[in-house]
Amino acid sequence: MLRSSLLKSANKPNLLLIQQQLSKSRFYSLFNRHTDLAFPNKNDAIIRAQNQAHGNSKTVGRIRNQNHYSTKAPPRFTADIYPNIKRDSIYKKIDEKDIDYFKSFLSPSEISLATTEDALDSFNEDFMKKYRGQSKVLLKPKNVESVSKIMKYCYDNELAVVPQGGNTGLVGGSVPVFDEIILSMNNLNKIRDFDAVSGIFNCDAGVILENADNFLAENGYIFPLDLGAKGSCHVGGVVATNAGGLRLLRYGSLHGSVLGLEVVMPNGDIVSSMHSLRKDNTGYDLKQMFIGSEGTIGIITGVSILAPIRPTSFNVSYLAVNDFETVQKVFVRAKKELSEILSAFEFMDCKSQEITKPHMGGIGFPLENEYPFYILIETSGSNKEHNDEKLETFLEKVMEEELVVDGVIAQDETELKKLWQWREMISECSQAGGGVYKYDVSLPLKDLYSLVEATNERLTKAGLVGDAPKPVISAIGYGHVGDGNLHLNVAVREYNKEVEKALEPFVYQFISEKKGSVSAEHGVGFQKKNYIQYSKSPREIQMIKDLKKHFDPKGILNPYKYI
Amino acid sequence: MLRSSLLKSANKPNLLLIQQQLSKSRFYSLFNRHTDLAFPNKNDAIIRAQNQAHGNSKTVGRIRNQNHYSTKAPPRFTADIYPNIKRDSIYKKIDEKDIDYFKSFLSPSEISLATTEDALDSFNEDFMKKYRGQSKVLLKPKNVESVSKIMKYCYDNELAVVPQGGNTGLVGGSVPVFDEIILSMNNLNKIRDFDAVSGIFNCDAGVILENADNFLAENGYIFPLDLGAKGSCHVGGVVATNAGGLRLLRYGSLHGSVLGLEVVMPNGDIVSSMHSLRKDNTGYDLKQMFIGSEGTIGIITGVSILAPIRPTSFNVSYLAVNDFETVQKVFVRAKKELSEILSAFEFMDCKSQEITKPHMGGIGFPLENEYPFYILIETSGSNKEHNDEKLETFLEKVMEEELVVDGVIAQDETELKKLWQWREMISECSQAGGGVYKYDVSLPLKDLYSLVEATNERLTKAGLVGDAPKPVISAIGYGHVGDGNLHLNVAVREYNKEVEKALEPFVYQFISEKKGSVSAEHGVGFQKKNYIQYSKSPREIQMIKDLKKHFDPKGILNPYKYI
Repeated sequence: MLRSSLLKSANKPNLLLIQQQLSKSRFYSLFNRHTDLAFPNKNDAIIRAQNQAHGNSKTVGRIRNQNHYSTKAPPRFTADIYPNIKRDSIYKKIDEKDIDYFKSFLSPSEISLATTEDALDSFNEDFMKKYRGQSKVLLKPKNVESVSKIMKYCYDNELAVVPQGGNTGLVGGSVPVFDEIILSMNNLNKIRDFDAVSGIFNCDAGVILENADNFLAENGYIFPLDLGAKGSCHVGGVVATNAGGLRLLRYGSLHGSVLGLEVVMPNGDIVSSMHSLRKDNTGYDLKQMFIGSEGTIGIITGVSILAPIRPTSFNVSYLAVNDFETVQKVFVRAKKELSEILSAFEFMDCKSQEITKPHMGGIGFPLENEYPFYILIETSGSNKEHNDEKLETFLEKVMEEELVVDGVIAQDETELKKLWQWREMISECSQAGGGVYKYDVSLPLKDLYSLVEATNERLTKAGLVGDAPKPVISAIGYGHVGDGNLHLNVAVREYNKEVEKALEPFVYQFISEKKGSVSAEHGVGFQKKNYIQYSKSPREIQMIKDLKKHFDPKGILNPYKYI
Repeated sequence: MLRSSLLKSANKPNLLLIQQQLSKSRFYSLFNRHTDLAFPNKNDAIIRAQNQAHGNSKTVGRIRNQNHYSTKAPPRFTADIYPNIKRDSIYKKIDEKDIDYFKSFLSPSEISLATTEDALDSFNEDFMKKYRGQSKVLLKPKNVESVSKIMKYCYDNELAVVPQGGNTGLVGGSVPVFDEIILSMNNLNKIRDFDAVSGIFNCDAGVILENADNFLAENGYIFPLDLGAKGSCHVGGVVATNAGGLRLLRYGSLHGSVLGLEVVMPNGDIVSSMHSLRKDNTGYDLKQMFIGSEGTIGIITGVSILAPIRPTSFNVSYLAVNDFETVQKVFVRAKKELSEILSAFEFMDCKSQEITKPHMGGIGFPLENEYPFYILIETSGSNKEHNDEKLETFLEKVMEEELVVDGVIAQDETELKKLWQWREMISECSQAGGGVYKYDVSLPLKDLYSLVEATNERLTKAGLVGDAPKPVISAIGYGHVGDGNLHLNVAVREYNKEVEKALEPFVYQFISEKKGSVSAEHGVGFQKKNYIQYSKSPREIQMIKDLKKHFDPKGILNPYKYI
């Protein structure tokens, strides 16, 4: 039996000692091993900022208002990197007359023009510093009527427009490719209203996710989505990109929780379904088309969303298992035993933790030995005692059945954060050796890890994996088991054409054969425009193109991307 | 304090005695008062069948395979009741050549033609017997390829088609108006596959909801939607109508839980997104357009849906409060205290229970006294002890604060069913006096009950309410508080033009002013086609019309309805 009394006791080691009588299962204390909470790595700031970009970091312990930009030099112009992509001549080049028109109804704080000193870099460049547009005009309207006037003018004059939220996207979807006007939602940032009875929250698109969540927290509610980039990304942006994030397992997708949208169409028409109703079966659910449309058919200016009650108690445990089949078995058991309180179920393979260790400094590895796979389970609910008991009973069972062979439970919030770090830091640590090829994919659960195995096998056969000077350090896998979402990272010493040739189109073909998706949560943007055929049939692609044409017949919204 | 020990004790009265020391709050036992479980009303069969149609009855205790039809004579032809609606001459009249073509690839069991003995009544008439079409041809293809061939032919030849699932809709959406071909999904009824790890369930559209749920139950999962018509309605039908039902508060809308659809387009193209992925951000989420499209832009032939873990423990309590403001307060408290285990929160006004009492026979009213409002709370979860304790603590608090003034808790499944009957039977009992005008509306929660008050006031001022011979018995209100969904029933002694004049467009205007929806869950169909402007703006209606044209340019799918 687990020593359950420890779970509720106050003056205990930070990480809980749960000693089992089973010979193979040993939970042990990490007390006195980890005293350094501070981030030891010298690249701390950069890594943490990047970490946020990947949407992998947990709310707790996040740096607020961080500088998004690393010390790297600005990226080359997208137009120079991709010379085959030409500026479409159908779009008018912006001139003085256009600027004068915008100035006729926008205040000086709502217009920024590029100068020799300020090329609008932070709006032209994407978060990952992979793409760089050349826009000379940034508009930041303060109300939806101005958005509408801007769009009507751009539509009539065939001026191309890139809508931009917090600009934290990972696929180059929110920055211009050429000279498109940047239409930022930064000034559209008011919380409109909140009904504390129903939990329905209405706000402008430009409200920062963290501000929305803080507001809801004060009222005992929670935003039904959490992201590493929470301190910068916009509510409208997460809806426009159908962000997944850390709470999907518990609160489901935005297609279920968004109740209404206010959208400015390409021709300037304002369409609002901000009815704040949980049920409305009158006509096609138009708002659904804009969720995940990445600013290509309309500009989201307002969001109505259903907020759930905020849990008051959290638990995190970090477990070891011997194979991926057991990861799945433990997942099923967790769903059954933890059921309504299960809020995250993440897995990490051995190599992902190996590659992370050297960069974690004072935060020692939670377990004494290494195992093929690790699982991070988070539970949350309204009653601490019940939650503790459920988790304890669950762990007892999976250990007795020898599914879980080792593990720890966080005893307080500090330890909870530390355990999360072993999941959160993988993404960044995997590029510390020189570089990383990253894939964010959905696969049927039974096939989830097979992509990592197949990739490793392929790279090894090609003689690309090993000690220096071999280019590949390792292909690692981790991700949201609950969502069928795998992150495949190929850590390399250098970017290398041979490695690229071995990886692509192999990875995409593999995903396609297993009926997966080449973008689980990051979206399409500029980066994945040419890979959509690996996830969608020609008929679906045609339907998507037809809808783009239907809603944006002149193609002025976010061109060169998505479809 | 509540006598909490009772809650877990075995040999106790069926309905729990929870005696409070507070003078105003009294929970008492119903032991020995209700011994008759059988349905005492002579109209039992009809009422129960109708009950199912309204989607109000609880899973437990449902009659399976009931005859949907009451003893009423068949309805008049829709074409005769609505002479202003004319058959559109663009549609070809079906002839021998068409039948021969269908016979060329469909087996005899897949085609039924109307004869003098069998006018295909059960497919031409709707569940409520309000509408009656005159179709002579019923096609029941056994596979999606045949659906595709049928649609291609109909598209090329401009033959109008009505897709039909279980034909349990309440707004005349699934039956023909004139001579449209009926395309039934009855023979498309196979469960395709189920992944017991992820909970992803794939099936043909024609699988009966109850069969799907029974299959999932065997695997420890639950279909994320429950309906009174479960024994007849199809999985494809609930998706096509975006049904709400009894589990919405807990599991959310189908827009969140449906993962993929297989759809046959009006021209016969098969479009499938049955990828069984929880996350896929590549392109517009096309399937969303078909959820709630009521067969107007495509025929759903396959559904992929995420099934949650089936709860193992249920509790139901029936509470009394003094005003609607307190209903809302108790709702907020229930969300906070019961949080992750809250699965239903229904309210009933005093008159709704008064009107129900005479028809409940042996099932005595749960409380000794009458109160202005009643609340039914259902909780469900994975741990009985925890669930009991949460409910008990919650009740303790709301009674101590004198929000709840009386109440009972079901002690076993029999009592649970009995308590649910006081909610479920309202719909039918309200028409027992002669007739009923029914409205299924969504309103912001704060305004939810004001429609009932305003309607009563208006009818009373008009001198229409009172003892016979006044036409109106009462306007009653009840519904899903958690979903902001009100059922307004105006019980009458006879259908009466004066009453209708007082009700409409008053009710719709009221809903429109409060930014509600004229159809929360029943859909548009034939019945509400002309009321959509009370819920949607002209711009939205235009967008819906444009999409209909976009997907079904010849307008052959489910004409004369929806938009």
